Amino acid sequence: MEIYLDNAATTRVCPEAAEAAMNAMVDNYGNPSALHFSGVRAKQLLEQSRKQVAEVLGAEPEEVLFSHSGTLANNSALLGAMTLRHKRGTRIVTSSVEHPSVSRVLDALESKGYEIIRLKPTLNGAINPDDLFEAVNSKTILVSLMYVNNETGAVNPVEYANKAIKQAKAPAFVHVDAIQAFGKMSVKPRRIGADFVTISGHKIHAPKGVGALYVKKGLILPNLIHGGGQENGLFSGTENMPAIAGFGAAAAALPDPMTMQRDMKRLRRRLITKLSKVPTILFNSPDNGLASIVNISILGMPSQVLVNFFSERGICVSAGSACKKGHRSEVLTQLGFSPIRIDSAIRISMSRFTTEEEIDRFVEVAIEASNELRQKVF
Amino acid sequence: MEIYLDNAATTRVCPEAAEAAMNAMVDNYGNPSALHFSGVRAKQLLEQSRKQVAEVLGAEPEEVLFSHSGTLANNSALLGAMTLRHKRGTRIVTSSVEHPSVSRVLDALESKGYEIIRLKPTLNGAINPDDLFEAVNSKTILVSLMYVNNETGAVNPVEYANKAIKQAKAPAFVHVDAIQAFGKMSVKPRRIGADFVTISGHKIHAPKGVGALYVKKGLILPNLIHGGGQENGLFSGTENMPAIAGFGAAAAALPDPMTMQRDMKRLRRRLITKLSKVPTILFNSPDNGLASIVNISILGMPSQVLVNFFSERGICVSAGSACKKGHRSEVLTQLGFSPIRIDSAIRISMSRFTTEEEIDRFVEVAIEASNELRQKVF
Repeated sequence: MEIYLDNAATTRVCPEAAEAAMNAMVDNYGNPSALHFSGVRAKQLLEQSRKQVAEVLGAEPEEVLFSHSGTLANNSALLGAMTLRHKRGTRIVTSSVEHPSVSRVLDALESKGYEIIRLKPTLNGAINPDDLFEAVNSKTILVSLMYVNNETGAVNPVEYANKAIKQAKAPAFVHVDAIQAFGKMSVKPRRIGADFVTISGHKIHAPKGVGALYVKKGLILPNLIHGGGQENGLFSGTENMPAIAGFGAAAAALPDPMTMQRDMKRLRRRLITKLSKVPTILFNSPDNGLASIVNISILGMPSQVLVNFFSERGICVSAGSACKKGHRSEVLTQLGFSPIRIDSAIRISMSRFTTEEEIDRFVEVAIEASNELRQKVF
Repeated sequence: MEIYLDNAATTRVCPEAAEAAMNAMVDNYGNPSALHFSGVRAKQLLEQSRKQVAEVLGAEPEEVLFSHSGTLANNSALLGAMTLRHKRGTRIVTSSVEHPSVSRVLDALESKGYEIIRLKPTLNGAINPDDLFEAVNSKTILVSLMYVNNETGAVNPVEYANKAIKQAKAPAFVHVDAIQAFGKMSVKPRRIGADFVTISGHKIHAPKGVGALYVKKGLILPNLIHGGGQENGLFSGTENMPAIAGFGAAAAALPDPMTMQRDMKRLRRRLITKLSKVPTILFNSPDNGLASIVNISILGMPSQVLVNFFSERGICVSAGSACKKGHRSEVLTQLGFSPIRIDSAIRISMSRFTTEEEIDRFVEVAIEASNELRQKVF
């Protein structure tokens, strides 16, 4: 029995998405830019997929542009926003625990003279709206915040970014990296007051190789990539139709977020109730975070050893995010946890396909790990 | 009966590649950066696919980096090369008929002060080696040439780029956009003397959403995209495993290039022999070009009307490249053809799955088009 509890890293493609992708590979395989019937059919599939994704965002289809990855969408949003506003200010406000596809772009901008204000999360893992109001000034051109933290599941109050900008009368855009949030909770760019929102297919059971950027109607982002001008000129390159069709199908197959959160919360409660009896297990995720992500520490064993311990028993969990293997979690460090706690942290991330039996088996192995360790370490 | 003769735009995914992609979607679906068994398996699949593609290039696996598109690979090669050499010169030599994913990057560099020398093709559609020797001087930092022209099939003498650089003692890199050439003829970066070679999956019956950049051993290109550092830091973003696995499988399934060219030449001869009896049909592709691409003009009918005429009869052909719909072909204009000839040009691009029956049916419809037009126009 293999148990996959690393759905924040990537997910198994759901049947609806796999079928749509297969159809786009061997049947409706045309190039949407081509003008013959095969191209027209592919173009229709592209636009249908765009509608399906836009529907979940409560956006208009033309506000959704497909990129080849969430990373490229994040890069394009940040650099595009900077290009549009570089004459009006130099301050960019963000958090200190963003994904590398945001933080490293901002690091690069910092080395070019931009002033990057990195807000630290409070003990619940989210940033404090007051800090946001303090950081945004009249020279701020961009606020970029992740909606849900990929390591702890903490949910940021992203709707305050727009409020802070209005109060400061700043010429700033709002960018929200909603890659972990999309499909698991309600993500509505208009309600958040965001200009740009990044989402990704492979976190919601679509194939890898497709992300999307919501670009608020009326805005035109300068392009980072030059080429054939696909996706309104922003994401040149032949559209990844199998993944895009899969993204549309996976989006259409998403359950109502309320239902999903309720189911996830039940699984989470089950996991936490059973594990809270073990004194050497600590919980690092906030109670009000995204229910599907649970970060725990099993004191005494390094994260990597824990990942292997679970892996040898057929269970996939993660030591932090998949994108930063081998480094001590910056996110947990920022939260002020002790080194021993950080170094023995693992992340369990569930999907809507996760079962109670799988959680029970995980709990068994976690208790086994804890017992084995107690004998060795304490 | 549907006949697809637009394989230079994109191809149907072959059974081997579709199966590999499906496996990477629903079975071996892990994230190659993850450290548990699912990640390890995905990583093995990634490296196996890299070997399969490298094998066809006669390259070492670590010289092949997977990107999310050929366009991104071209952008990264050009901007990376420029960044590495910007202190040693400002001249870049290219041709006047490159794909937009090259030409538009160079246009952008020109507006930043670089001197872009755009060699015009001679009447056979390829650039003249003498022009290359003349254009490359000691301040040249990059020569970028497409191997095979996407509209005419003309083959450029790319191996002269390195010779011209050596003669001029220039600090220049050689970049070859081999997207149309790869899989149809021998493409060996080492033999060409290229530092960077771009290829793409979906032109060789792999899924869309994956390209690759050959980067000569010892060279490290600065990255255009910031993020998790995948693919040696050059192409951040979760690897598009279904497409990459499909690329590997499609590369492994490629017939020997000699065999393929022989088969293509037979089909091409069949097509040309039959159509050369029609006085209003002209051939725009050079005899020594890639056999699978045949550009013809059916005088009197605009290209777009021709594309529709064929499309209504179940045949997909293209008016120039899929990436430039609606614009008069720059490539044919550069070749010095008359406007009436250019405006009635279409491209037939075959694959190894194209049959004699399909060519015969195409010929029938081409003759029908020609007759119908003669009555209307002449």
